[in-house]
Amino acid sequence: MTLKLDDRQQAARDWFEDLRDRICAAFEEIEREADSDASFEFLPWDRTDHDGSPGGGGVRGVMKGKVFEKVGVNVSTVGGAFNPEFAKTIHGAEEDPSFFATGISLVAHMANPHVPAVHMNTRYLVTQKAWFGGGADLNPPLPYDEDTADFHARLRAACAPYGPDLYDRYKAWADDYFYIPHRETHRGVGGIFYDHLESDSEALFDRNFAFTRDVGDAFLDIYPKLVRRRMKQEFTPDEKRQQSVWRGRYAEFNLIYDRGTLFGLKTGGNIDAILMSLPPDVTWE
Amino acid sequence: MTLKLDDRQQAARDWFEDLRDRICAAFEEIEREADSDASFEFLPWDRTDHDGSPGGGGVRGVMKGKVFEKVGVNVSTVGGAFNPEFAKTIHGAEEDPSFFATGISLVAHMANPHVPAVHMNTRYLVTQKAWFGGGADLNPPLPYDEDTADFHARLRAACAPYGPDLYDRYKAWADDYFYIPHRETHRGVGGIFYDHLESDSEALFDRNFAFTRDVGDAFLDIYPKLVRRRMKQEFTPDEKRQQSVWRGRYAEFNLIYDRGTLFGLKTGGNIDAILMSLPPDVTWE
Repeated sequence: MTLKLDDRQQAARDWFEDLRDRICAAFEEIEREADSDASFEFLPWDRTDHDGSPGGGGVRGVMKGKVFEKVGVNVSTVGGAFNPEFAKTIHGAEEDPSFFATGISLVAHMANPHVPAVHMNTRYLVTQKAWFGGGADLNPPLPYDEDTADFHARLRAACAPYGPDLYDRYKAWADDYFYIPHRETHRGVGGIFYDHLESDSEALFDRNFAFTRDVGDAFLDIYPKLVRRRMKQEFTPDEKRQQSVWRGRYAEFNLIYDRGTLFGLKTGGNIDAILMSLPPDVTWE
Repeated sequence: MTLKLDDRQQAARDWFEDLRDRICAAFEEIEREADSDASFEFLPWDRTDHDGSPGGGGVRGVMKGKVFEKVGVNVSTVGGAFNPEFAKTIHGAEEDPSFFATGISLVAHMANPHVPAVHMNTRYLVTQKAWFGGGADLNPPLPYDEDTADFHARLRAACAPYGPDLYDRYKAWADDYFYIPHRETHRGVGGIFYDHLESDSEALFDRNFAFTRDVGDAFLDIYPKLVRRRMKQEFTPDEKRQQSVWRGRYAEFNLIYDRGTLFGLKTGGNIDAILMSLPPDVTWE
């Protein structure tokens, strides 16, 4: 890890790592409430850039508990040069393949099929442009309207200070993004998705960084509530099986369509960290 | 199914369906030897072409038994027009998107982790060109040199009458094709893979159709032997778990890289038939 970070890059990175710490603590606390001593295991990895030089790295955090069947919380801070072919597809890297990226990425697959699985990711990227992107979506194997409504309401509240139509636009973006064309279905009950929040100037950086922090805090506020609401609910073997089948759709989405997965594979990220999102115990009937 | 088939198309189709019948009978016979009354369930599906007109269809065959945890044997005979974007990527369809395809496709995931999983597919395609393609590869969760050697020897024998270097070339092609770049590993122990065996003339058609038949017969000759060799071998829960983890690699290959999967998704094939190849009970640790 010998990347040299400017102040904004460092501030974003520090935030993502702080958020990771708070999320992991909150999730471990939930495990304690279920009389489990499970805790996160943290595995650092280094990235090598195209030309063999050091290109940053990350820390993969994983916990396998009683409530959280498998949860991955990854942070990474990487930089160097995209491979030329891939650079053409990235905002601001069409002419110059240099890039920097820092972010947090989280996927939780839950033991109890009544508890929704969830995904959250926020990131700060710098090419010849600089921008924030991110999102969070709820993925209940057995959906409850109440959970869906509360999750969306909390994200709506996080968006509200930044523009009256922000939530609606980012919700629509999530509906568009988290869709599995070959199944003609969404992978979950949605959330928000946003990208390319241009942050070249200090004013734009400050605004979009504040928004990104609020999204992270909103996630940390609402998701543990949903987990606690459902984690002690009884479930049948058939409901557990429905969860396994439903997870197949989630795996299909991540392996075929997810841009984050592709980004990781194309930039020499850590394969175990990238595919940490894949569910434990999946069934294709 | 209102496609009009010429003699060669009809002959190829008849062969694929006959091979399907013989394979299914052989696999059901193995189930009987394990005191199981499992049998194939056949589900026909129709394909609608781009413009809404009938575009052929297929029959998805699936058996979930005691020996065969999940085996899919699909035949399909489809035709019409590729979508224009996809046509550009297909041999002989660059200028004219009309196509015809008939084939058989088989994937077996086995209950006993000592028994190798297997894949076999042969097909006849007509665009402005006409060609055969296909292959078979062995995918043992717990590989045995003896099984690998016997599988390859039988395919080598099938190739031998058609050219001294055929097996070596098609084996190398399989090694190249059945590779998972992001894992830097092959998905199994190989087999053969071939494509674009030009069959425009009657002589070429006859030769390559004969070769394709011999590949199908070789598969039907050798695979049941390997199944019978291992199906009664004891296995531990840990070996079963190793199988589930290993199946994750198989799913990754099929969802990210497999051309057959992509072909099906892009040509409006039946989604359940296309994804029939995905394993039951997969674990991503």
